[in-house]
Amino acid sequence: MPPGTPVFTGDKFPVKTFTTCIKYNDSSYEELDDFNLVRLDAEDDFNYWIDIRGVHDSKYIEAVGHKFQIHALALEDILEIEQRPKMDEYQNAIFITAIALKMDAQSGELSKEQITLYFGKNFLISFQEDADDFLKVIRDRIHQKRGRLRQRKTDYLAYSILDFTIDHYYDALDRIEKKLSDMDELLHEENSIISQKELHDIKIQVIRIRKSIYPMREVINRFIRSENPLIFPETDIYLRDLADHSIQIAEMSETYQDMANSLHDLYQAETSNRLNNVMKILTIISTIFIPLTFIAGIYGMNFHFMPELSWRLGYFLILGVMAAVAILFLLYFRRKKWL
Amino acid sequence: MPPGTPVFTGDKFPVKTFTTCIKYNDSSYEELDDFNLVRLDAEDDFNYWIDIRGVHDSKYIEAVGHKFQIHALALEDILEIEQRPKMDEYQNAIFITAIALKMDAQSGELSKEQITLYFGKNFLISFQEDADDFLKVIRDRIHQKRGRLRQRKTDYLAYSILDFTIDHYYDALDRIEKKLSDMDELLHEENSIISQKELHDIKIQVIRIRKSIYPMREVINRFIRSENPLIFPETDIYLRDLADHSIQIAEMSETYQDMANSLHDLYQAETSNRLNNVMKILTIISTIFIPLTFIAGIYGMNFHFMPELSWRLGYFLILGVMAAVAILFLLYFRRKKWL
Amino acid sequence: MPPGTPVFTGDKFPVKTFTTCIKYNDSSYEELDDFNLVRLDAEDDFNYWIDIRGVHDSKYIEAVGHKFQIHALALEDILEIEQRPKMDEYQNAIFITAIALKMDAQSGELSKEQITLYFGKNFLISFQEDADDFLKVIRDRIHQKRGRLRQRKTDYLAYSILDFTIDHYYDALDRIEKKLSDMDELLHEENSIISQKELHDIKIQVIRIRKSIYPMREVINRFIRSENPLIFPETDIYLRDLADHSIQIAEMSETYQDMANSLHDLYQAETSNRLNNVMKILTIISTIFIPLTFIAGIYGMNFHFMPELSWRLGYFLILGVMAAVAILFLLYFRRKKWL
Amino acid sequence: MPPGTPVFTGDKFPVKTFTTCIKYNDSSYEELDDFNLVRLDAEDDFNYWIDIRGVHDSKYIEAVGHKFQIHALALEDILEIEQRPKMDEYQNAIFITAIALKMDAQSGELSKEQITLYFGKNFLISFQEDADDFLKVIRDRIHQKRGRLRQRKTDYLAYSILDFTIDHYYDALDRIEKKLSDMDELLHEENSIISQKELHDIKIQVIRIRKSIYPMREVINRFIRSENPLIFPETDIYLRDLADHSIQIAEMSETYQDMANSLHDLYQAETSNRLNNVMKILTIISTIFIPLTFIAGIYGMNFHFMPELSWRLGYFLILGVMAAVAILFLLYFRRKKWL
Amino acid sequence: MPPGTPVFTGDKFPVKTFTTCIKYNDSSYEELDDFNLVRLDAEDDFNYWIDIRGVHDSKYIEAVGHKFQIHALALEDILEIEQRPKMDEYQNAIFITAIALKMDAQSGELSKEQITLYFGKNFLISFQEDADDFLKVIRDRIHQKRGRLRQRKTDYLAYSILDFTIDHYYDALDRIEKKLSDMDELLHEENSIISQKELHDIKIQVIRIRKSIYPMREVINRFIRSENPLIFPETDIYLRDLADHSIQIAEMSETYQDMANSLHDLYQAETSNRLNNVMKILTIISTIFIPLTFIAGIYGMNFHFMPELSWRLGYFLILGVMAAVAILFLLYFRRKKWL
Repeated sequence: MPPGTPVFTGDKFPVKTFTTCIKYNDSSYEELDDFNLVRLDAEDDFNYWIDIRGVHDSKYIEAVGHKFQIHALALEDILEIEQRPKMDEYQNAIFITAIALKMDAQSGELSKEQITLYFGKNFLISFQEDADDFLKVIRDRIHQKRGRLRQRKTDYLAYSILDFTIDHYYDALDRIEKKLSDMDELLHEENSIISQKELHDIKIQVIRIRKSIYPMREVINRFIRSENPLIFPETDIYLRDLADHSIQIAEMSETYQDMANSLHDLYQAETSNRLNNVMKILTIISTIFIPLTFIAGIYGMNFHFMPELSWRLGYFLILGVMAAVAILFLLYFRRKKWL
Repeated sequence: MPPGTPVFTGDKFPVKTFTTCIKYNDSSYEELDDFNLVRLDAEDDFNYWIDIRGVHDSKYIEAVGHKFQIHALALEDILEIEQRPKMDEYQNAIFITAIALKMDAQSGELSKEQITLYFGKNFLISFQEDADDFLKVIRDRIHQKRGRLRQRKTDYLAYSILDFTIDHYYDALDRIEKKLSDMDELLHEENSIISQKELHDIKIQVIRIRKSIYPMREVINRFIRSENPLIFPETDIYLRDLADHSIQIAEMSETYQDMANSLHDLYQAETSNRLNNVMKILTIISTIFIPLTFIAGIYGMNFHFMPELSWRLGYFLILGVMAAVAILFLLYFRRKKWL
Repeated sequence: MPPGTPVFTGDKFPVKTFTTCIKYNDSSYEELDDFNLVRLDAEDDFNYWIDIRGVHDSKYIEAVGHKFQIHALALEDILEIEQRPKMDEYQNAIFITAIALKMDAQSGELSKEQITLYFGKNFLISFQEDADDFLKVIRDRIHQKRGRLRQRKTDYLAYSILDFTIDHYYDALDRIEKKLSDMDELLHEENSIISQKELHDIKIQVIRIRKSIYPMREVINRFIRSENPLIFPETDIYLRDLADHSIQIAEMSETYQDMANSLHDLYQAETSNRLNNVMKILTIISTIFIPLTFIAGIYGMNFHFMPELSWRLGYFLILGVMAAVAILFLLYFRRKKWL
Repeated sequence: MPPGTPVFTGDKFPVKTFTTCIKYNDSSYEELDDFNLVRLDAEDDFNYWIDIRGVHDSKYIEAVGHKFQIHALALEDILEIEQRPKMDEYQNAIFITAIALKMDAQSGELSKEQITLYFGKNFLISFQEDADDFLKVIRDRIHQKRGRLRQRKTDYLAYSILDFTIDHYYDALDRIEKKLSDMDELLHEENSIISQKELHDIKIQVIRIRKSIYPMREVINRFIRSENPLIFPETDIYLRDLADHSIQIAEMSETYQDMANSLHDLYQAETSNRLNNVMKILTIISTIFIPLTFIAGIYGMNFHFMPELSWRLGYFLILGVMAAVAILFLLYFRRKKWL
Repeated sequence: MPPGTPVFTGDKFPVKTFTTCIKYNDSSYEELDDFNLVRLDAEDDFNYWIDIRGVHDSKYIEAVGHKFQIHALALEDILEIEQRPKMDEYQNAIFITAIALKMDAQSGELSKEQITLYFGKNFLISFQEDADDFLKVIRDRIHQKRGRLRQRKTDYLAYSILDFTIDHYYDALDRIEKKLSDMDELLHEENSIISQKELHDIKIQVIRIRKSIYPMREVINRFIRSENPLIFPETDIYLRDLADHSIQIAEMSETYQDMANSLHDLYQAETSNRLNNVMKILTIISTIFIPLTFIAGIYGMNFHFMPELSWRLGYFLILGVMAAVAILFLLYFRRKKWL
């Protein structure tokens, strides 16, 4: 395909695309039936947020693009799943691709969702890969006038969505830390064993988090450094806080990777140790009894002429020799500290 | 050889060199028989693309070089296979060396091809190491007026070729990811084993991709930062997209390397574990039966005077002793959690 | 929760919050009963230090915030435990979050405490996560006029608290170095073994120290580079000293990590070596006695016709053969340098 | 020794020092008998190249130094073997220390030679550690007017020598790549084994190449960035090419190190695997036959009263029991996929 | 302790503090009895060097500090052992902390000494942690007029002391390289084994060298970049040489670390290999003889009715069966390439 053709490249096909469109300012909040009711050129202080869930329907996305004059390349990026998080500035609009990582509380599986934001002076459009209402929490905050969303413009709304996305990284890291410290405790118990497969799964999850958070950090830093008039100076302190969070997530994931590696090393050492102990038991038993069995074997031979066999105390003598051999070996192993 | 001597250093000698030469503008498209028909000084808006496949024939390449006034050092670089990707700016022309990596869909083998571009105001010459028509897709796009190639100049054509080249890296990485996740799944099944040789092959492929993509990134960044009048500002947004792709490829290959390393660690842990289990079976069996065999061996001795042999219940007594020994060892192993 | 809501996120709930409030200048020192007695607008040269221990009571913290006009975001950061160390500059005040790491002398466990400082022209408020009087030493120095605290302003007090915090990192590192060199010595003794679990614990502690010291370094560097009028040039040389210490702590923790890794490698090599030795003993004993037992077994068979059995010297001949076999194997093992 | 004392620190003492002195310009080429015939102040366009092989004779080197007014510190560096490659600019002269790595084609051993260049407006002196005529190829090029050496000044000669030196790194890397791919192929065959010692030798060679190429890169970059009038702008494009080569060598050596590490990992995995297989054979044989031998041992006991012995079918019954035990174990091992 | 309190923190308490005080210029050299004879304000061209060995006596050091007006913080740093190398510039004086690493020629142990320099226009004070006369060599050079020390000022003396300190790093690295190449050779011999403990000791030494050289490099670079009038431009070329040396030491220690790691890998591979060979011997012997012993055991049973026992050739038949079994196993092992 030539570059610039909008094609959906993901593999999540929800039944249909859901759209929620709200119009709000400091004093009022209203849900609109259709995004076509949005008035981009209004001189009032209303903000519009069009939240689109499920981006498999390229026709629909193109209609949205037409209404809000979204650049062709941006439209292509919205449909193209597996994008690297990025921020582009268009005339009168800012385009941001973010990756949300969600840790499933039950299964502990990490799933990924691409969220793209396109916002201008009085509107923000969010395109979510999945159909579930991930950003409902933020809409509720606007509705219930919690936080500062009502008083601020679209840049603060964009910040809030990114902040909410980044917060989910902490959830994933918390669960990973929990698992790592469980394993750590387990390893300090006697004879316990950790599952290498679980440790491997944790490593893979940490690798995935790192893969996503690094470009997210770049996006947030570009957001901060941007001198676009759409971004108000009051939002700066919040964005810097967000940047701090993204650095902390990157550092935490590195720390957890180091911890997982140390656990792996400990596991390998324990396994080697355990093998040594298994082999010591085998060696002690074999070393003591194989020679004794040989001695017994000698006097089990059927030669017609074997003088010892007819000795009165031959049997007890040989039993004594056997005991002596066994004791010598036991002393030898004791000196080697195997016993 | 003194520096600046054009000598072919590759090992791919196709039967002959193939050349396809096209002339196009927004409204017309024509295939020329010979590159000598290209008119470099024309004041019209035609673009010429001379695509040369197979660069073993230094005579031919020198003829091309003469016609298009290619600098001697650039000519040498075209023939010298195993170049590091680079971009040089000559008077009125830009010279780019790129490396295409192609993953064979059947065998999964990664092959490498050097592609050099030399373009001026109205012409672009592409030199491909292999004779196969790798860039046919782009020629077709021009022919069928798909995408923006017809409206743009040679810088966009150069971008399109680089973009097409970079896209093939994704193919290779996709296949690698597929293999890695297959292995990952396999390792989570009971008693299954992954092939270390395949894992090693994947690692080597990732290493090769990284080796190629880092200098490619540098080339693309120089392309972007260049202030050469041959590169039009409209192409910038496409080049930045290409730069994003090259960063993503570098990051993905690092991620896959980390994953392969984690798989290797898991494999090693599993192997140690399996060895431990093998040795436990051997140790349990040996530890129980070797002493028992010794006891049996004692009463198999032929001493004339062995009081126990004539006891009425001697045999059953000894069988009892043997059972007791076996049970003690079994309890011991149970306490050690080996059973 | 929307960003900017002050909520306590820690898990340490002391019985109550302790507050110590002092007022001092070069010539006098006084303890105040209540932080409300602090006069922020005074033109005199008194400094006020309000030390608050235990930050679980958000009501109380909000009261403090109101009195000293602390920014809402700073208040939130004070209550939010697990912050990344950071420094923010507000109008007329500087806000610093630091992490204190304390190594318990008995158990060798590393505990973490968040300490936040908020200081203006003539006051400094320190918020400690724990209720214990960690900073008593510094208050005593002021009381007893030791050091330069009395003559300087709040920036020097903030420096002193950070310096005291950083000093505790050295304590932790000293204990880690002690343990590592103990292990090192132990490994140079014959037949001794180090505890992999202890080594793992040390690695985890080093990882935690590194995780905390890197952002602390950034905070200190921002403190130095800040051109805030609250920071006097005379404090610069002390801050640079502090920065040197933070670099040294980072370097030391990296060094200890390398040492722990080398110890781990040595341990693994020793374990493999020991396994080799165990297996050599087993192999020597088995290789010699298993064939001998087989020979004895042959002549223990009850075939009616076995010519050797009736030979006059059969028994001694076979004993000789056995001795020869044993000697041959011993020579073989000697040549292999196993004996 | 105080700094600045010229002392030879190498360990290669050739029989004598060889000096070849040539005088050339675009139209003529002449060999001079003695370096004292060089005229430094001539206004003609002749270049002089004094090539000195073997630097153990500090008297001779000092004489050369006196004739060409070489700075005392530069003289010291010429004699001091084991220098780090570097470039110093003196008044009217440039001083470069380079390291040549030569791979012996037969033995595959890597040897190192220090080559120092000291050049002014119309002369270049090369000091080689070894007595062999390493730079003959370049002298021949001048003699036979191949390449551009005759038309250019001493900066181009210095470039040519550095380029020739760097080319030898490729030879070494080619051989290393050859060996690595041989090993790679070998590992893909059944039951084959690679020599860990050879792999270690390759790693050491790669480490040595990296150790030399990094400072060489710095030297070349300083050469390019230098604004010394001795370096003509026409040489720039050649120096940039050389810089590209040095980067490529550094990247290749890193790639080969990664490959060697992956081969090592594969080797370790194969060895563990092979050990597992060895132990499985031992365990299968032991587990089956040790219990059987015990059963046979029971009925080899000589108790007077053993009812089974007198049963008519006792023998066949026991053989049946033995067969059953063996079959049960075989089924067990089959279920474990060991057979 | 509050910051700025001079307290000795080292653990080396020599019997007393030794002080050597010399006064020299180009033409004269004199030893003074007491540092109080130094005239700091003299307008002549004399340099004074006060060399103090053993810094445990804080009273004495404070007296020196008072005489030469050393800043309180510098005094504290002199007494505080375990400082990070650093350079501070005070009014009219420069303060440098360096770490000397000395390799004991016999025991091969690495010991560390802190050397601090404090120098002004015409005096330099060196404070050494140990009481031995480490810098005697430099004093002798001044006395015997070797090198340039007599003609230069205190900056050159400071350079000479740092240069002498850095030279000792080369001694340590030379010994390490010697040991590594001995081990390397040893590993290429048959059946030889290297001591992992020695390899570990080498690694620890390299880690310690790296830990010291990195901050030393920073100190030297600050020395070069400093624009303090106490540092004359003529010293620059010597300082740059020193900086080159410190970079080379850092690179060499990294190279040796890589080599030690490769040796460790080789060792691990050899150990695994050796274990495999041990186990193969055990497996071959056990696999052949355990089944044979079982066969012998069968015919050692005492069943009354065992038809084979009365066969005329039963014994030889069974011997034949045994030989056949043994040969089959031998062929099997030969096919597996174990023999």
